[in-house]
Amino acid sequence: MPELTHFDAEGRAHMVDVSDKSETARLAVATGWVRMAPETLALIRAGSAKKGDVIGVARLAGIMGAKKTSDLIPLCHPLPITRVAVDLTPDESLPGLRIEATVKTAGRTGVEMEALTAVSTAALTVYDMLKAAEKGMEIGGIRLKLKEGGKSGRYEASE
Amino acid sequence: MPELTHFDAEGRAHMVDVSDKSETARLAVATGWVRMAPETLALIRAGSAKKGDVIGVARLAGIMGAKKTSDLIPLCHPLPITRVAVDLTPDESLPGLRIEATVKTAGRTGVEMEALTAVSTAALTVYDMLKAAEKGMEIGGIRLKLKEGGKSGRYEASE
Amino acid sequence: MPELTHFDAEGRAHMVDVSDKSETARLAVATGWVRMAPETLALIRAGSAKKGDVIGVARLAGIMGAKKTSDLIPLCHPLPITRVAVDLTPDESLPGLRIEATVKTAGRTGVEMEALTAVSTAALTVYDMLKAAEKGMEIGGIRLKLKEGGKSGRYEASE
Amino acid sequence: MPELTHFDAEGRAHMVDVSDKSETARLAVATGWVRMAPETLALIRAGSAKKGDVIGVARLAGIMGAKKTSDLIPLCHPLPITRVAVDLTPDESLPGLRIEATVKTAGRTGVEMEALTAVSTAALTVYDMLKAAEKGMEIGGIRLKLKEGGKSGRYEASE
Amino acid sequence: MPELTHFDAEGRAHMVDVSDKSETARLAVATGWVRMAPETLALIRAGSAKKGDVIGVARLAGIMGAKKTSDLIPLCHPLPITRVAVDLTPDESLPGLRIEATVKTAGRTGVEMEALTAVSTAALTVYDMLKAAEKGMEIGGIRLKLKEGGKSGRYEASE
Amino acid sequence: MPELTHFDAEGRAHMVDVSDKSETARLAVATGWVRMAPETLALIRAGSAKKGDVIGVARLAGIMGAKKTSDLIPLCHPLPITRVAVDLTPDESLPGLRIEATVKTAGRTGVEMEALTAVSTAALTVYDMLKAAEKGMEIGGIRLKLKEGGKSGRYEASE
Repeated sequence: MPELTHFDAEGRAHMVDVSDKSETARLAVATGWVRMAPETLALIRAGSAKKGDVIGVARLAGIMGAKKTSDLIPLCHPLPITRVAVDLTPDESLPGLRIEATVKTAGRTGVEMEALTAVSTAALTVYDMLKAAEKGMEIGGIRLKLKEGGKSGRYEASE
Repeated sequence: MPELTHFDAEGRAHMVDVSDKSETARLAVATGWVRMAPETLALIRAGSAKKGDVIGVARLAGIMGAKKTSDLIPLCHPLPITRVAVDLTPDESLPGLRIEATVKTAGRTGVEMEALTAVSTAALTVYDMLKAAEKGMEIGGIRLKLKEGGKSGRYEASE
Repeated sequence: MPELTHFDAEGRAHMVDVSDKSETARLAVATGWVRMAPETLALIRAGSAKKGDVIGVARLAGIMGAKKTSDLIPLCHPLPITRVAVDLTPDESLPGLRIEATVKTAGRTGVEMEALTAVSTAALTVYDMLKAAEKGMEIGGIRLKLKEGGKSGRYEASE
Repeated sequence: MPELTHFDAEGRAHMVDVSDKSETARLAVATGWVRMAPETLALIRAGSAKKGDVIGVARLAGIMGAKKTSDLIPLCHPLPITRVAVDLTPDESLPGLRIEATVKTAGRTGVEMEALTAVSTAALTVYDMLKAAEKGMEIGGIRLKLKEGGKSGRYEASE
Repeated sequence: MPELTHFDAEGRAHMVDVSDKSETARLAVATGWVRMAPETLALIRAGSAKKGDVIGVARLAGIMGAKKTSDLIPLCHPLPITRVAVDLTPDESLPGLRIEATVKTAGRTGVEMEALTAVSTAALTVYDMLKAAEKGMEIGGIRLKLKEGGKSGRYEASE
Repeated sequence: MPELTHFDAEGRAHMVDVSDKSETARLAVATGWVRMAPETLALIRAGSAKKGDVIGVARLAGIMGAKKTSDLIPLCHPLPITRVAVDLTPDESLPGLRIEATVKTAGRTGVEMEALTAVSTAALTVYDMLKAAEKGMEIGGIRLKLKEGGKSGRYEASE
């Protein structure tokens, strides 16, 4: 049975010792979405064209969110992030915005949490900016899509 | 067509003026979940009993996350939160953990974003603590369930 | 001779007691600029049209900077800001960007520092995004333009 | 035409990938000033001698501000700063205080923004402590004076 | 038997609901000390006179620490602090520095934690600045001395 | 006479230059305690068994506090912490809780301040959660127990 590494032998939470891990190049990609009514999505499109730039604000929030990961997640190690990119793409079939975040570092632990936090923060920011128009939006599909580097190696989500 | 209040007439992002709103009692409840393999959920249950307390750590992360909302979400107003409670409940039918956050304030704007941020942060923390066991977990169903107070009044999610 | 209110009778720094001040509506407007080569300004204009949105990013940074004021300035009181707006306008005669920030609160102290911090943060962000093109840019003209509310009343910069 | 590195090919803001840059010793020196009435400057001098130490408080604020740079500036990379020094010198000819900040790191990107942020934060703190005496002070002359290390090499401001 | 208010009926940690408490004037005073060798204390005295100002730096750190209380202590409510003062006094009989912090607010909960956090942060800062001279210093005596305001009324430490 | 390294030759506070120090494995262990009435300690024991988990919350607060050290202590360098563990043990003879924190890094400066900050934050959190039951608790005995790595080498507290 796999071990819960964030707890010691007595079950006490701790920040795992990564002192002996080597600093390697690490990459993580996470995805998620915000589902909304078609009219709300239309507002975003209209806004991007000539009024408010919902996508631009959410992208920036996601990037800044990635930098706050170790402050938000209690047992996360602080990491010197070397790249963050966040993209938000309208998808009529959802309908809503699809979000993807890519984070890189050269460090002792992976950046999965940074990528997932970037997606979450961008999604929450989308909700904030559109909530006056629609309160029933839903945030979901937040998953790790890809992970490279480190001892456990490459992981790619099945579907 | 509803207005995007976070943008001014020229489409520039701003923090909305709430100076003239009255300070009223406000409440928001948000929900979400983390879906995982049955074996991962079994780990949590085993852990709560005698090893690591995943739920206890995630609950605390959610409470502290609510206090960071205006730091994370660019156009959110800082608010003097008066109550935060976060619950995580195992659900075999998911399978995974269901999360619910309740936030209260006496302020000029609502606490929807605080409740949603609490749920998100708790969910990310669950992922962090269990990712050594399963990388394919998914975070979803993040929605506003209930909102009370303020000029726009009560909102309750349909389902 | 005016007193330095941030020091007590023995010259020790402290955060001034505002407990007995009443909560009134307060407003502050601050201005500043970033001076750059005409070619750098041209880059911003080109970017806003179809590449990177320097002004949009700097505006958001200024708004978020205002919320961090009491964290940055040692003797500043934390304040429940009720509005922040930051505008950046290209000015060929500078040449560069002119910045103006407006902050409101209903509180016991003024928001001059919040408005000045918003301008500073927006200016630093402009420098950051353009420094690959020009390292010699200068930030200046950071001043309080207008202040309303509170016991000391209205202040408007002479010129 | 120089490129705006903080935007990708589609003009979307991102945090530039510095993963492949080598960790080298880097230094940056930035300067700025706070201009004030001669009587206000006299207050600082009097204070340093026997009442409040405006310069000491501003110096510390500048040092702490440098550490917050990546939190304030959206697209800045977090960096392990290895040295910060901030000096504030009274200058009767200004009249006011001249500020200079020196920052060092061994990292993948430069510390220009950290030095500029240190100067800005120190200047804002001076304003805060003296604003009860004079609201018309002006912050200006914020520039990069010197930069060493990294691929782009040494830069020294012309004048 | 007194209740642990930070846990609900099922023993789950939460941030206590203070929505129905009235906003009243509240005051707390906390104390503590840093014990050190007489030679280390002599260094502080010498420094204050003509070299480094240990006491001035620690005082400022204490004031800023008070503002971070709700960020540090998981179940603390964010509060609009209206006054913070921190004093450090050399005491040859300790030998070392005695620290006292006073915090005020007009809020729904008390400021005991803010005063205790100010003392702790000032003490840690003293340790940091003197640790090159003496690693064996001890921080102790951190207690609430006085509390006023709120439903539970006045509390004064017995001795 | 030992030097106060946090001040330069003119006595000005600065963040010491560690650029030329090598990155080595570093460890620090700090201890402290919270003294309370036997009945309060009994509350903790009862709580851990079936109601609120005071020790679990304080442990997490201590771990997160370690990550905030360079934000709290003005002249501390930011460090990439690689491990934090915090233990709290009931001690009837105190009576109260004994706290021990262990921090590791691979960096240019030691982690004494991180370990001491973890202990302090855990202690303050214990106070916060129990203050409704007893206001007279005392925090003390905060000391460095062990330090390894770096040029100054190993230090172990005498007793």
